[in-house]
Formats: sequence, C-alpha cells, structure tokens
Amino acid sequence: MSHLNVTQKLIKEHLLKGEMKPGTEIGIKIDQALLQDATGTLVQLELEAMGLQKAQTEVAVQYVDHNLLQTDFKNADDHVFLQSAARKFGLWYSRPGNGVSHPVHMERFGKPGKTMVGSDSHTPAAGALGMLAIGTGGLDVAAAIAGQPYFVKMPKVWGVKLTGNLPDWVSAKDIILEMLRRHDVKGGVGKVVEYYGDGLKNLSAMDRHVIANMGAELGATTTVFPSDEETRRFLKSQNREEDWKELIADEGCEYDLHEEIILDELVPLIAKPTSPGNVVPVREVEGKEISQVVIGSSANPGLRDFWMAGAIVDGKTVSGDVSFDINPTSRQVIQNMIDNRAFANLIKAGARFHQSGCMGCIGMGQAPASKTISLRTMPRNFPDRSGTKDDQVYLCSPETAAASALTGKITDPRDLEKLYNMSYPKFKYPELEIINTEMLVAPPEDNSGIELQKGPNIKSLPYIEPMQDHYSVPVLLKMGDNISTDEILKAGADVLPFRSNLPEISKFSFTVIDDTFYDRAMKSKDEYGGHIVVAKDNYAQGSSREHAAIAPKYLGQVAVIANSYARIAWQNLVNFGILPLEFLDISDYDKIEQGDVITFKNLRNDVISRNNIKVIIRKPNGDKVKFETKHSLSDRQINILVKGGIINEFKERIEEKELGEDEALDQTYEDKMK
Amino acid sequence: MSHLNVTQKLIKEHLLKGEMKPGTEIGIKIDQALLQDATGTLVQLELEAMGLQKAQTEVAVQYVDHNLLQTDFKNADDHVFLQSAARKFGLWYSRPGNGVSHPVHMERFGKPGKTMVGSDSHTPAAGALGMLAIGTGGLDVAAAIAGQPYFVKMPKVWGVKLTGNLPDWVSAKDIILEMLRRHDVKGGVGKVVEYYGDGLKNLSAMDRHVIANMGAELGATTTVFPSDEETRRFLKSQNREEDWKELIADEGCEYDLHEEIILDELVPLIAKPTSPGNVVPVREVEGKEISQVVIGSSANPGLRDFWMAGAIVDGKTVSGDVSFDINPTSRQVIQNMIDNRAFANLIKAGARFHQSGCMGCIGMGQAPASKTISLRTMPRNFPDRSGTKDDQVYLCSPETAAASALTGKITDPRDLEKLYNMSYPKFKYPELEIINTEMLVAPPEDNSGIELQKGPNIKSLPYIEPMQDHYSVPVLLKMGDNISTDEILKAGADVLPFRSNLPEISKFSFTVIDDTFYDRAMKSKDEYGGHIVVAKDNYAQGSSREHAAIAPKYLGQVAVIANSYARIAWQNLVNFGILPLEFLDISDYDKIEQGDVITFKNLRNDVISRNNIKVIIRKPNGDKVKFETKHSLSDRQINILVKGGIINEFKERIEEKELGEDEALDQTYEDKMK
Repeated sequence: MSHLNVTQKLIKEHLLKGEMKPGTEIGIKIDQALLQDATGTLVQLELEAMGLQKAQTEVAVQYVDHNLLQTDFKNADDHVFLQSAARKFGLWYSRPGNGVSHPVHMERFGKPGKTMVGSDSHTPAAGALGMLAIGTGGLDVAAAIAGQPYFVKMPKVWGVKLTGNLPDWVSAKDIILEMLRRHDVKGGVGKVVEYYGDGLKNLSAMDRHVIANMGAELGATTTVFPSDEETRRFLKSQNREEDWKELIADEGCEYDLHEEIILDELVPLIAKPTSPGNVVPVREVEGKEISQVVIGSSANPGLRDFWMAGAIVDGKTVSGDVSFDINPTSRQVIQNMIDNRAFANLIKAGARFHQSGCMGCIGMGQAPASKTISLRTMPRNFPDRSGTKDDQVYLCSPETAAASALTGKITDPRDLEKLYNMSYPKFKYPELEIINTEMLVAPPEDNSGIELQKGPNIKSLPYIEPMQDHYSVPVLLKMGDNISTDEILKAGADVLPFRSNLPEISKFSFTVIDDTFYDRAMKSKDEYGGHIVVAKDNYAQGSSREHAAIAPKYLGQVAVIANSYARIAWQNLVNFGILPLEFLDISDYDKIEQGDVITFKNLRNDVISRNNIKVIIRKPNGDKVKFETKHSLSDRQINILVKGGIINEFKERIEEKELGEDEALDQTYEDKMK
Repeated sequence: MSHLNVTQKLIKEHLLKGEMKPGTEIGIKIDQALLQDATGTLVQLELEAMGLQKAQTEVAVQYVDHNLLQTDFKNADDHVFLQSAARKFGLWYSRPGNGVSHPVHMERFGKPGKTMVGSDSHTPAAGALGMLAIGTGGLDVAAAIAGQPYFVKMPKVWGVKLTGNLPDWVSAKDIILEMLRRHDVKGGVGKVVEYYGDGLKNLSAMDRHVIANMGAELGATTTVFPSDEETRRFLKSQNREEDWKELIADEGCEYDLHEEIILDELVPLIAKPTSPGNVVPVREVEGKEISQVVIGSSANPGLRDFWMAGAIVDGKTVSGDVSFDINPTSRQVIQNMIDNRAFANLIKAGARFHQSGCMGCIGMGQAPASKTISLRTMPRNFPDRSGTKDDQVYLCSPETAAASALTGKITDPRDLEKLYNMSYPKFKYPELEIINTEMLVAPPEDNSGIELQKGPNIKSLPYIEPMQDHYSVPVLLKMGDNISTDEILKAGADVLPFRSNLPEISKFSFTVIDDTFYDRAMKSKDEYGGHIVVAKDNYAQGSSREHAAIAPKYLGQVAVIANSYARIAWQNLVNFGILPLEFLDISDYDKIEQGDVITFKNLRNDVISRNNIKVIIRKPNGDKVKFETKHSLSDRQINILVKGGIINEFKERIEEKELGEDEALDQTYEDKMK
C-alpha cells in the first residue's frame, strides 16, 4: 500500500501490533481519551482498581454532560467523585454545564492526525478534524489511559465521495440521514466511513462533526474526514491554528468500498420512529401535528445550527401547541449565540432554554407528552429513549425542526419561502469565536496525595478471583437467541443511578427475564462459588454497557455457554473474567437445563492450551451427561481471562516484574506479552 | 374605623360577609386567581367536578413553572391537560418556560387595589403592588374562580415601619430575613404584615416582592405594601401605567401590632438549615465550604437580583468546587439580562443556566451533593426539600450568594470590597423593560365545545365519605412542632409528577418522617377504617399544597390533634373532610402515643354542636385514658367538614336545590348558606 487513504494513514502511524489486513486484530497507540459521566464513574473506579498513577495519554478529559438533572444526591455526588478522580489520575475535568463532550472536545482538544478512544458511542465525531476516534467500552478506555494499545479488528475503509453543493434548506444532517436511508443501522458494521471529494469544500468542520457523530448510527467503527483548509480555518477560529496539520488521502489511494452522494440532489430528510435508519423525505410525512421540537445534542452542536434556528424563528412565535426546547451545546456556544443574536431570537420566539448538556438526547428530561410527535435534531430515536414509552420521535435537521416549530406540523423547510416569504439564511462563521475555557480544569502538576471523594452511592470495584481449574456450579438460566444487554442488565431511571454502585446495580441482573435471578445467584455464590448461564445465538447484542458483564461477574458468573456472541459483549465478558464458551454442536443445547450442576475440570489449562472444554452435567436426579465446548479467544484475551480480567492482569504485570508503576506504564502491552 | 390602613381599605372594598373584627370569619370578593401547575392540575379537576362554565374572576391565570423536567410522560401530559383546561374554563395560560408565576403575574397582571387568591403559598408576593393576595388551597381557588367569596379569619394588621436606608451589600432579602430572625416561622400567624414608612422610598417594587413573597415564611396571612410612586414607576416600566392607582394608608390610621426596622442597622443575614426562621448574621457562619450556589426563585426574582450577581462575578470565575446554578425567573427576565449584560457575565463566570421556572426551589433538579452546603436565594430550606436527604441548605441574598460562589465559602458580601477591591454595584432600572407576552395565551372568546385532554396519569378525584359519629382508629404518628407540608407530603422530582394521581401520590405521605407510614395507613384503613395523627404547634406550615390533606385523607385520615395549625393547611384539612382538633390542655399531648387506639363517640353531633370532643385512648396494654379537645371551625367550615369536604358540599347544594349548575354557580356562596 503505497497510496494511502486518510484512515490507513492514521492507523499506520499508530500501529503497534498486527497487520493492516481487514478482519485481523490490530493494536494501535491511543493519543487521547474521552470520558463522559454516565460511563466515566465506572472507568474511574477501574483506574482506581488498576492503581493508575497518572494518565499516559497526551490528553484525557472527563466530561460531565449526561447526568445533570440532580433529582437526588446521586448525580451531584458523582460530579464530586469525578472531579476528585480527574485530579487524582491526571485528567482534564470539564465541569457540569460546560457542555457536551464531543463538540467541546473538538473545539478545545481535537487535533488532526491523532487517535482517540471514548467511552461514548458518538466519539467518532472527532473524525471531523482528521482524527481516528473510536467509541468503546469503559475498560478499553481505562486501558488506553493507562498507556495500553487499543485492540480492534482492522476495518474496511468505505470511501464516500461527496460532489456538488447542498441546495438551500438542506444541511449536513440531511447527508448523514441520506447515508442512513441508503444503508440503515447496520450498513457500517466493520467499516470506517471516509468522506472525500469536492463536495467537502462547502462543509464546515462542524458540519463534518454532524456527519461523523451520527455515523455511529450506521454501526460504523468510526468516520474519518481529511484535515484540510477548512479544518485549519476552524482551529484558527478556536485560537488553535498551531494544532492544525494537513492530512489528506494520497492521490491514487484505494477504498475497500465505494459510495457517491451528489449533494445537489438531496432534499430535507427525516428519520421516522423508532430507528435512525427509518429515513424518508420530509415531504412524505409533512402535515403531521407535533407537540415538541428539540434543537441541540452532539448531532447538531454547532453555532450555525442554533443560529439557523434563531434566524428562522426571528420575529415570530412558535406554535401554541409546541414546546420549543433548545439545548445549547456548551457555555462557549451560549456566549457566541448571545453575540450573534441567535439566543435572543430563540428566547423571544418562545424557546425553553436548558443547561448545556445532553439532556433529552439521553432521556434526561424533555420527555414528550404521551403518543405525541417530538421532532429532534438528535442522533437516536429508539423506543422509549425519550423517557415516554409510547413516544413518536422523529430526527431531522435544525431547518426542518425550526420550520415545524413555527407551523406546529412537520414542515419541509423549503416551504418557509412561500409561508413566510423567507429566503434561506446564510451563516457566516466568525473569524475568531468567543472562547471560554474557564470551566475546563487542567490536571494538577502534582497529583500525589489526592483522595477520591466517594459519596454513599459510589463503591469501589470488588476483587475478581483468577480462573480456577475446578468448578461445580449450577446453571441458573437457559435462554434463547438474541438476548440483549437490556435483558441482561436493563437501563432506565431506576437502574442508571447505580452505575457506580456494583452491589446495588447487580440486583437488576437478568430481572427482565427472571426476577428471581439475583436471589438465586447470591445463594449459588454462597453454596457453589458461582454459576453459569446458557444461551443460543448472538448473546448480549445491543448496547456496549460493561455492566452486563461486571454485574453477573459480581454475582459469581464463571462462564456463559452460547452458540455465538455479539462482538463488544464478547470482549466485555473476557475483560471481566467470564469465560465465553461456544457449543461445538448446537444439539448439545438440548442436553442442558436450568438447575443442572456443571463441573469443569482442568479448566484453566484447557483454556490456555485451546483444548476443547469438557462440560460434565449432573442432573437433579443424579444422572450425568457430558459434551464438549470451545472458545475462540486470542492469546491476549486468554491471558486476561485466566487472570480474572483486565484489571488483575494489569496489576499482576506490575507486581511480577517488580517494576515501579510508572515504569510499568511506560511499556506498551505487547512488550510485556513476550 | 375612619382612618384606615392599606389592608383595611383593601378588605373593606371587597367585604361580602362578616365584620372586620380580627379573629372572626369574613368573606371577601376575589378579583384575580393564580394557579401553578403542581397544584393546578388538581384545581382544574375540581373545576371539572364543579361543572364550571367560565371563570368568574376578572383575571385567572394557569402558570406552568413547577414540573418542568419531564423525565417521563407525566409532566408533559399535565401541560397538555392544563392548556386544554385553561381554554375550557376561560383562564389565561402561561406556557411552560414562560416563567415563575409570582413575578410574571406581578409584571403582567398585578393591579393595585385588587384581591387575589392563589394555589401557591407565595401568592402574597403580589402584595408588593398594593394588592391583597392570599395563598390558599386549590379548592378555595377553584371556588373563587367559580365566583364564590373567599373566607378567612379577619387578620390582625401588623404595621412594620421601615426607616432609613439599606447599607451597601445589604438588600431586600435581608429585611425579610431580619423579620424571620425576630419572629421565626410562626410570628406572622393570623396577621397581615403591612409595611410603611420612609424606608420604603428606596425599595423598588421587586424589592417589595422579595419581602412580600418570603413573608409567607412568617406564617402571615399575607403581606401588603402601599401603592405609591414607585408602584407607578414599576407599572410604567411594564408599559401598564394605566393600571396604577394610589393606595396608601390614611394618616392617623392604626395597626393592631407594631414593629420598626431601622434599615441602616441591618447586616447581611442568612437562614441556616433547616428552617427559614433559623437566621443569623452571615458573619456567624462565614468560612464554611460550599458545594453549590443557586440564584433565582420567586424570593429573588427581579432583574436587579440577577444583575447584581452578574456584576459581582463579572470578569471572574466561580470557585472550582462550586456548582453555580442560575434559575432565570422568566423569558422576559432573560431578554432583559441579555440586554444588560448580566446573562453574559454569569455564563462567562461559570453559571449553569436553567430554564425559567421554580426548579431547585421545589426540588425539581439541582439537588446538592451529600452533606455539602448549598447557598440559595430561595425562600425555604425545610429538610429534604432540595432532594438530598442530608442536605445543608442556607438561604441568603443574591449578594451573599454571588460572593460565596467566588470564594467557595460562605462569605459576607461586604468582604468583596477588600477581597476584590470592589465597590457596591448600583442597579438602575430601565425606564421601559423589554416586554415579552408571547407565551401568555389569552382565554378564547368562545370556550364552548373544548375537551379536556387527560393523559393516563391524570385521575379523577375519589369520593370522600361524610363524617361518621363513631370511629376507633389508631394513632399512626406523633409529631412535634412546626411540621411542614414538605414533611407531610414532600415535593421533589419523584413526587411532583403524581400531583394529578391521588392513589400514587398518597404513597409518599409522611415518608420524610417515617417511610413505613403508607403501609401502616393502608393496613389501618382496612382494619379500623382510618387513622389519626398528633402534632404540637403550627402543624402543616409551609407550602399551600392540598395534597398534604387529600393524600392523608385518601389513606383514611379522620382527624389531626394538634396544639395549633398553619392557616392554609387548617382550611385544607376541612376542605377534604379531616377534622383539625386542638388540645384544650397541651399537657394532654403526653398522654397519647403512636400505637394507641382512639375512640370518638357521637363525633358528628359534637362537632356540629361545638361541644368539646372527647378522646378516649386505649393503650396497647389495655389501659384507658381520656381527655377533651375542641375545634375552632366556623359554621361554614363545620358544614363542609361533616359532609366530607367542599366538593360534596358544593354538589349537595346543587342537588338539594335542584338548581342547574349554571344557576348554582351564579349565586354566591353566602346566598346558599341561608
């Protein structure tokens, strides 16, 4: 590969292990790390368990943008905890209300040519600046902060050529909606989407953010843009021109897959309930009555987006039946909106302005009225995500949202020309934005002696036992196909507040399937030292939440036997010391029942030696049955698993080599695997 | 009485029944009505039950300022319901996010010389403009909207003479805190506080609002200011000079009680946890570390208050350990804050700006971290009101709050002179404020055929049984002095959404005091048909919420025995059929214990005949004890009580007299009492 695309250049520059052959595991050096609060509490507890002295990445930032409502002590306590953890481990801390992680990170820390992992699925947004930015589970982010490579299968690179210019009233959101219209929510799996072409020249860095951010909805590993003159302009407007460097694809480079979008042909698009992939032209659903419009979120975070909404409603009042909610992206965006009159225009027209943060995008307030339509510029409209069970959430551009707020009905923004005799407002980016860094707290020079401040809901992670050779444990659940992480550990307002309290959150394990599970698991832990569960295909699909592994582990889960696993969950199980076994013959599934007691002998050795794993079943009536299973783990994963997970493995390496922790952290993972 | 004070003039002008003799019941004509959403859903259900055709008051306004967070469908559904109810019954509708009821009402509807009832305990704020404005339970407001007189005991008038001028860094909030320091939370019971004297000349209408608003914390019936040139200036600045009329006390008028405050002698004051009456100089508690400052609420709603905070933090950044929360009062206030730079100053210094509304003042978000100190410009700091059980909420002026936000410690604002070389900022009111009426929706001319829109959480009111002659019911709680309605039925994000769903909200009855109450009450209801509770002085102080009566009633509460009652709650108990008994001899309090079973015999007759009410106690060991109690109810109240509350009584009158509902509503209450 002599002619490289941008993605290949980024990976090549950071490759520590493996070959750039799609589908094979590679390990890459990580320059930056992004944490938000909802997942960050667990990451910080993981860093504590690892005994991290100081973050090894160039930049690591703990944002607080998800859990801002503070209806009881828990969220406020988390903020105090996260601030103390940022100080202790040497991370930047973005204070509550400072803004949404992705746009703030892009404005203040984003740097062309760098890699980043983030414990948030919209981390790819940073790809807008020519970064390779991947969303992942918290433990992988913790490992990266501790200086370890990030392991991922080498993705295919999907070149998307943009040509021409967007028509009036059509904007960046419509481009990513077009991608979703064409390829739906699984179209990007195993791929990096790389945009190129002359159509880029009229897309601002924040427009590219919109596309990279919501690229997560394609299921893509990440999205990448080149770093060009527009990238330089953006960084200059953030007073950081020195952080710019050019990063463009080599002429003659190749892509594994090809796509072209002719921008001139796009029309305003909208994703209907209840999937971001359910995209149609706005024209197809126009006229439906709406109860709410929400503008904001990391999928439309830019000054332009709010200014556009403000320009559209300027001098008018939103429909009497519409709640017009504005979620400003950051403190800095608010200051610029005051400056460019967008703020006053929106307020005067009837906006409910909320504090800077994710807010309704993650169901933190702003739930719409029952069975009514809410139009949002957000990236997701999964069922119940808004907080209202029978919600009807549509996703669209700020232009479509603002137009609809005025009319009270889903409205194609092009109709504003005749409805209000309006021509398409043109935004001009300021040369230098008003910049606010006051609420970004730098890590202390000297972080010794800093204590973690833990409120009563924040519990340290328990020690996980290394894998033993012998287990005799009962089968507590026998499940079918496509069990989701929501069934293993549900989300929701009653569960999320315990995300930093493993003893509490583990009580919700498998409650969706069987609400006696917790009691039975605790009993098995006492009597047998653990349990296993059984499933069929695609076990633990859905969200990447680590709690779906660590909570069952806390209850003593030794292994899962399934026919196949969802990719992220499979890694999560290993990371927390649960053995993901696979049936050799799916007909063996019928031989095993809830209540059976399983014996593993010589397990540790068989796992390491890649022998088939013998499963000896004792039925309640005393009968015995046997069959064999296997695992598909890499050497790296085996090593983690037998030590009881990634935290133990990390600590052991430090102790065995009798290295100072700092030294240990200076070596890369692969050095020590030899 | 030929020389009248302002209060007497207001009452005389509106007197429909009774004599202006302190302590005797009077009925007065009501010109205006104020509803907020948390109590308003119930009021609208009451109007529905009454069959109201159209509001009979000059002005009635349904505000939406309490339940703004929308963490699920309930609050949003309530907003839709309230908007439909306002249309159906002919009320103004102030849309969610338009602002806090009291300041918005003062700006847009307040009118010297008028009377008002409001289903919010801070309704007296309107007294700032020379109105007689009384906070009361929702049923009384519903009756007033239906054209009925409002009944209240003729209060004593407490003249408070203000002389001199406030020192720098001392403001209106410190005046009402001084009143609370002197007289505590019961000092105003049975009184109207009327301010006069030359000290008034430097207190703006919004300063007077601060004092009148938080006068509710004195337990006063209301607070009254004269309508003078400052009142005219204020109304002119709201473009409503034509609504002004002079209303001042006659020379030589008399007051029932006397007080004087020499303004020059005041210092910055602060109310310590957990009572607004727990007031000390800021100096006494300075230096304590804080985690939060909240500026806003109807107790410091004015442009000056936010401007002052903005001027103090201008060019600085708040302490790294402080969450600096700003709750703007209204959309109009935000627009003026943008105009006068306060908004930008606050944002830049690190403020978390929230939507316009009550927010943290009623525990709707902003709960502080465990065991940490929160400084608030709000009117109340009852236990757990913030949403955090072990909260430490202090109440103070915007000056003290902003100064403390900068230092991270409780700080006397006078120290800013040496700490920051700052002189006291002086606010100049604009001649004409930016005025925003866009989100105030006028009632329709024709309200026929409008349907109420009820979501699944909005439940009709249950039937309440008339009073029986015989009860044998257990004492479920024995409480002390100053039990607040927050303790009887707490506010907060977990409870407020159920305000239109009695079966659900009743589960929170008395949980602050004893979280076994609900289960015990339901058991008693089954086994004994009800229960009673016992308290000492000033039972059910605090907010006006009727739920503190209707929820215990739903759980079977027959009676309360206390030494004295807060005024609003006393009437609320009667309105929902709970007998408020008083000890004849407070030493009898020691004879009664939780777990005792109380027998009332011949109760109905004794109540009606004003006999002493015999309380026969059976101890768990079988011992019997007796004592006597009394009630202080008017004939009108007795009639309501024995029928099981005001709705039964209202319906019965309609049925007995075989009147059409319209006719019934056209007659005043007193007509039908004959």
